[in-house]
Amino acid sequence: MRGALAGAGGTQSAIDEVVLLDQTAAPATGDPRVRVVAADLTADGVLESAIDADTRAIFHLAAVVSGGAEADFDLGMRVNLDATRRLLEICRARGHQPRVVFASSVAVFGGALPDVVPAAQALNPQSSYGTQKAIGELLVDDYSRRGFVDGRSVRLPTIVVRPGRPNAAMSSFASGIIREPLNGEPSVCPVSRGTRLWLLSPAKAIECFVAVHDAPASAFGTTRVVNLPGISISVDEMVAALVRVGGQEAADRIRWDLDPRIEQVAGGWPAALETSKARTLGLPGNENFDEIIREYLATR
Amino acid sequence: MRGALAGAGGTQSAIDEVVLLDQTAAPATGDPRVRVVAADLTADGVLESAIDADTRAIFHLAAVVSGGAEADFDLGMRVNLDATRRLLEICRARGHQPRVVFASSVAVFGGALPDVVPAAQALNPQSSYGTQKAIGELLVDDYSRRGFVDGRSVRLPTIVVRPGRPNAAMSSFASGIIREPLNGEPSVCPVSRGTRLWLLSPAKAIECFVAVHDAPASAFGTTRVVNLPGISISVDEMVAALVRVGGQEAADRIRWDLDPRIEQVAGGWPAALETSKARTLGLPGNENFDEIIREYLATR
Repeated sequence: MRGALAGAGGTQSAIDEVVLLDQTAAPATGDPRVRVVAADLTADGVLESAIDADTRAIFHLAAVVSGGAEADFDLGMRVNLDATRRLLEICRARGHQPRVVFASSVAVFGGALPDVVPAAQALNPQSSYGTQKAIGELLVDDYSRRGFVDGRSVRLPTIVVRPGRPNAAMSSFASGIIREPLNGEPSVCPVSRGTRLWLLSPAKAIECFVAVHDAPASAFGTTRVVNLPGISISVDEMVAALVRVGGQEAADRIRWDLDPRIEQVAGGWPAALETSKARTLGLPGNENFDEIIREYLATR
Repeated sequence: MRGALAGAGGTQSAIDEVVLLDQTAAPATGDPRVRVVAADLTADGVLESAIDADTRAIFHLAAVVSGGAEADFDLGMRVNLDATRRLLEICRARGHQPRVVFASSVAVFGGALPDVVPAAQALNPQSSYGTQKAIGELLVDDYSRRGFVDGRSVRLPTIVVRPGRPNAAMSSFASGIIREPLNGEPSVCPVSRGTRLWLLSPAKAIECFVAVHDAPASAFGTTRVVNLPGISISVDEMVAALVRVGGQEAADRIRWDLDPRIEQVAGGWPAALETSKARTLGLPGNENFDEIIREYLATR
């Protein structure tokens, strides 16, 4: 993301500084405009010192992910709800209405869902993570309506193939069953082959974040929420693509060991979402899953 | 409400005590089981001392209403969001999973709405009050899913005819144009005659609260939210009913003085909601608006 941002021209005037705030220090970039901060965003003063009256854009992705927020309710509330609210309050206090792009999730949906979830589908999270993200969307909308920030909430599909290692997200397997086999390592799939997922690649997600940031507030209508475009695909179809791009020997490194808890949660996520607003905003999506695998191979 | 509760038999075992907590003391009832507490529920220790491990049922209606939460954002957040969350946290700490019936509102909806808002309609509040109520619904759902409370959220129609005096609610006029004329006083209607409202009488609302409380958790499905039944009626039709029940001289006490701010907000509220869940739960509604006016006349 930092590359895309530091390099972004478009509607933006020049970027003097990009602050990368995370619990662990992001890798150095060599770009003198990039300031890396390693800090806990729930700690006193951290957000206050990261956001000043010159801050024009905030991309708020920090979160305790789904499995983590389910395992530790209070931590999830503190990070996903309280810190998001404090971020918005600090922006409000600065008084200059910065753009805030908030990473939300398809986990805001649950219960009985149509095959393609319409734009006006009710929020019905079935996890604490989804609840906290849904509340974040509502706060971003109200803070924007009142002119405290110029906010946008993007509902991320499951991002695949994530670089790095497995994490505590319930969706961690979706990257794992592609990434580990391509790197010669075994991987366990905790859900059945028919499970349908809604996926977007990291590179397209970054392009979407920048495009959502650049879009005028007037393009959003009565809510600042937008579903990012995804592709709807079953685990079986993902594996078939892995065979095509990485060979049968890669696919053979996947072992199935169903985890009822993950199967239940993942099975409740929407398999596809209406993306007419994303199209109106000109957000880019992936062509197919083979392209997503090749993108990973080209960037690892 | 206190009468209905203290008198409620049904599935409940005997009620030893009813605590009425409000900013201003509720009128004395003469019933020794009723304890009246006048306190600010945002003040330290107030909720803590009102809720103990013997508290089996909590009806949480306290709120900064729509106009008030729009005029004072911080007050609305403190009362409607923070105090609701603290109430849920105290219940969680007590550890006995009390029933909590949370009063929500049709103000959680907004934007372009179909004539009859379906059960799965997206939350899209266009006011800070609606935002805070929507967040309350999400919290009640998640605290219930996790077993911290046995919660229920009822989306109240506009309650008409409210006894007493006008208040800071955007919907205050809906009672005012009936109540004041019936009491020989003038009343100003700030919205046009074609404005459609979704109404429920105070007596039916209380019956619904008790029925929602008594319903088993299993009756609610994947969300504890239920739209109370209402009648969908235009201001013009309300006035026609006032003529029928209270005479033309009552209706002549209404003066129209449009307030664009109220007209815009009230025009964004749903005119009718799908109530199949309310029917499943056996919640009672009104027959027609004449009945609602007569109910007021009988109880004032």
